[in-house]
Amino acid sequence: MTERKVYLDNSATTQVRKEVLEAMLPYFCNIYGNASSVHSFGQEAKAVLNSSREKFSQLINAQYSDEIVFTSCGTESDNISIVGSVLASKGKHVITSKIEHHAILHTCQNLQKNGCKVDYISTDKTGRINIEELKNKITDDTVIVSVMHANNEIGIIEPIEEISQILKQINKTRKTPVLLHTDAVQTAGKLKIDVQKLGVDLLSVSGHKFYGPKGVGALYIRRGTKIEPLFHGGHHEFGLKPGTENIAGIAGITKALELANTELETEQDKICKLRNYLKDGIVSKIPNVIINTDIKNSVASILSVSFDYIEGESLLLMLDMAGIAASAGSACATGSSEPSHVLSAIGASPISAQGTLRFSLGRYNTKEDIDYVLEVLPGLVEKVRKMSPIYKG
Amino acid sequence: MTERKVYLDNSATTQVRKEVLEAMLPYFCNIYGNASSVHSFGQEAKAVLNSSREKFSQLINAQYSDEIVFTSCGTESDNISIVGSVLASKGKHVITSKIEHHAILHTCQNLQKNGCKVDYISTDKTGRINIEELKNKITDDTVIVSVMHANNEIGIIEPIEEISQILKQINKTRKTPVLLHTDAVQTAGKLKIDVQKLGVDLLSVSGHKFYGPKGVGALYIRRGTKIEPLFHGGHHEFGLKPGTENIAGIAGITKALELANTELETEQDKICKLRNYLKDGIVSKIPNVIINTDIKNSVASILSVSFDYIEGESLLLMLDMAGIAASAGSACATGSSEPSHVLSAIGASPISAQGTLRFSLGRYNTKEDIDYVLEVLPGLVEKVRKMSPIYKG
Repeated sequence: MTERKVYLDNSATTQVRKEVLEAMLPYFCNIYGNASSVHSFGQEAKAVLNSSREKFSQLINAQYSDEIVFTSCGTESDNISIVGSVLASKGKHVITSKIEHHAILHTCQNLQKNGCKVDYISTDKTGRINIEELKNKITDDTVIVSVMHANNEIGIIEPIEEISQILKQINKTRKTPVLLHTDAVQTAGKLKIDVQKLGVDLLSVSGHKFYGPKGVGALYIRRGTKIEPLFHGGHHEFGLKPGTENIAGIAGITKALELANTELETEQDKICKLRNYLKDGIVSKIPNVIINTDIKNSVASILSVSFDYIEGESLLLMLDMAGIAASAGSACATGSSEPSHVLSAIGASPISAQGTLRFSLGRYNTKEDIDYVLEVLPGLVEKVRKMSPIYKG
Repeated sequence: MTERKVYLDNSATTQVRKEVLEAMLPYFCNIYGNASSVHSFGQEAKAVLNSSREKFSQLINAQYSDEIVFTSCGTESDNISIVGSVLASKGKHVITSKIEHHAILHTCQNLQKNGCKVDYISTDKTGRINIEELKNKITDDTVIVSVMHANNEIGIIEPIEEISQILKQINKTRKTPVLLHTDAVQTAGKLKIDVQKLGVDLLSVSGHKFYGPKGVGALYIRRGTKIEPLFHGGHHEFGLKPGTENIAGIAGITKALELANTELETEQDKICKLRNYLKDGIVSKIPNVIINTDIKNSVASILSVSFDYIEGESLLLMLDMAGIAASAGSACATGSSEPSHVLSAIGASPISAQGTLRFSLGRYNTKEDIDYVLEVLPGLVEKVRKMSPIYKG
């Protein structure tokens, strides 16, 4: 056991930044009104809600502040987008990719159980979606295309703008347009989110992935997009997220995105250098590894590595003993014995998928952190490999 | 304008207690792991989640900790209960009351649109549900009965135990039992919640109603109760609330209920005395008022008063100018021009309903607060009445 702690699981979650917590603190004990109340306590809260919505809309370049719906998490944003648009439409066909987060995949599988047709588009070996295949799958019945902005396991950035252009062309001759949703949970705070440039109708965000609080997400819904609510109750958040607004959380996610956007280039540049330093170190120090992350087309923070002859879970536990937190893939899929659907989609063998770790870096990582990992990791890999009956190192 | 502030809208929301905020603070910047991660950061979070669940289950006398699902709000808990049980069942009939919160009523109305039959049971003049009517409405097709523990506008406590006894009798001869859900959003922290004694299968709670944070709720689900999820994604909260767990919020709601339960009798006794003092003062100082709250059968905190010849909204605004925060009814229904469905159900005329205010007291109210209200209110009522064309005071 060691006292040294290196957190390389920033794609699973991040710590709340001190400045974000400070921005939230007034809304627990002092400004605590219900934003729906007409009195001054309520109106104070309402003002914070309104200004957060305005600010958030600007941060992602939405045209109107009422295009932002605050939710309780990215999963909720995803569910509202997919199911809400299907409920609001006569169509019964959804197109998505094979490498989406479970918040999309499991939602789509449930739609299939209820008579909806879903096509899962394949990707190339880097994880980039097959645009031609997507194009060919669109029918008169298609309601929505949902492709993630960047993948949570391997970091690949998907060509959302290109997909948007294709849909714009197709929508010219349609009565009801095919909607475009992107799950931007892994990109908000890492890439500049510009909903106009991306050309999306719906975009999901989660606060705790970029140093905001857990328990709050956001959903961009372009004006005019038809979405049915999944939950019913009060009129909150335009009826799409009924329930008293979580003002502290909403102030927090907004502050977190504001801070991230301000420092975006310098921070991501720093993180990218550290990530590449880690990659180069692993490649030079450890034989028989495959880098799954397409370094040139990925978010700066993620590095997915397959170690041959390795049981990933064992390596993960040994790293943890050494104070290093990494991940075998998505935290949300932990405990599943299935090989990662993302790694399968990019053509990794089940054995290779099983020996895969995701390192995801963040703003608090230093070169010393990476040096420590590079010092410890080769020995641990060797140790685990020696337990393998097929390794001849 | 005045500097004096008296908050009498504790049924809309409450401030977070300092002790609750303190209990939450470690989980923003320090213990921040994703509870699904296998490494020590994740396991630390998981331990907090588990101990909160265990604690919460004990606080409401659940038999097992896995009967507690943490959600994002009371509305979510209500929606999962009603829709989730209908989805999991072959039956298509729901029974509820006419005086439920919109989280139940609007959810039921949406079920009706989708082919479900819903019966809304009437109440007597105090708001107490008509048990005979409820009993007569149960058919072979009935999935669930949902009756609130106490009403948010008038405070009446419903006979949940009695309903449970009736259902137990009926369920003896049924293959699939009729489930019993209660919305305990207005009673948790105010009455001792004992799910065994109440005999419910499902019970909804919201953190911010008892000095916990906004953005977190809980749902008790008796083991063996069949509920389909409404959102899909990860395995979190037994698949019923997918999305990274809001550990700070979960620690907060648990601490808030723990504190409330510890001080329940003394606090509620204090609040009840203040509420009754307010009632007596209003009745003696202001002519032509009707007390809608059945003082003997209500939660201690709520006082609903109808002022004849009054437009409630005007009085509310004048009170607000004097620093007093009250409500015209449910905060969630603010802005609606319809008369309150609760007041309609107990037989109040639309005019009387329009002149109704809800004062809801809390742990931070003092006798001085009430004295101030009693000093200010009669003059304001007189002022508003003088604007009425039919008032001859």
